[in-house]
Amino acid sequence: MTLHAAYDPSNIFAKILRGEIPAVKVWEDDGVLAFMDVFPQSEGHVLVISKTSTARNLLEVEPETLATLTAAVQRTARAVVGALSPEGFSIMQFNGEAGGQTVFHLHVHIIPRWADRPMKGHGQAGMADVEALKATAAKIAAALD
Amino acid sequence: MTLHAAYDPSNIFAKILRGEIPAVKVWEDDGVLAFMDVFPQSEGHVLVISKTSTARNLLEVEPETLATLTAAVQRTARAVVGALSPEGFSIMQFNGEAGGQTVFHLHVHIIPRWADRPMKGHGQAGMADVEALKATAAKIAAALD
Repeated sequence: MTLHAAYDPSNIFAKILRGEIPAVKVWEDDGVLAFMDVFPQSEGHVLVISKTSTARNLLEVEPETLATLTAAVQRTARAVVGALSPEGFSIMQFNGEAGGQTVFHLHVHIIPRWADRPMKGHGQAGMADVEALKATAAKIAAALD
Repeated sequence: MTLHAAYDPSNIFAKILRGEIPAVKVWEDDGVLAFMDVFPQSEGHVLVISKTSTARNLLEVEPETLATLTAAVQRTARAVVGALSPEGFSIMQFNGEAGGQTVFHLHVHIIPRWADRPMKGHGQAGMADVEALKATAAKIAAALD
């Protein structure tokens, strides 16, 4: 998958947005959805996506959508920090397969970090337990301002 | 360095902004500066910072500064892709030492990626040749819209 291609509406985030497959949601509004990564690279790994845009990557996204998405990332990151007290966190956004992207609907990773817990590779630890994800999502949601 | 601490005006990006140490600039305006990372993780590794904010990380940055910074990241990423034709690129933004942050002035990494060239660790390849960085910066600047 190159940087320049058509949006594929069968990608899994599009399916989540259409309610065709489940996700463990943290919060949402008309513009964005924050939900738990089912292949977490650390405890509390959250993804934020736009509900309104079919941008595949940062090159394509409309300026207003980008601003809305970024503000949502900040809001979510504050809640992750408030809920889980990581020592740090990494924001990652991958573009193109060579850039690390596996789902071709623009998304931003929020990955809490602790010095004594190395960050896992994506998918390296396998799929998370859904009930544990739901508990973490509820903690993060409770810490939203 | 924890997530919550005072801004240290002796950090190297503050020194760059004050003109006390040199940087290989790609472009700048009143709000932002894009410049080459001297410890590149790949060819064309660019950093984007705010000139006006003393936010250390994503938790602290003002909403308008964040929107300005993010728009500048998008503009710069498009120019990087136009100039260097990477197969993909990764956006990374680190918060706190445990989150991978080494300079405590909010900054965003734009890292071009090629499938056959593994991304280096930060600083792993040592300091880049400044003349080579200047040539790359000029190519990227020429591709700005």
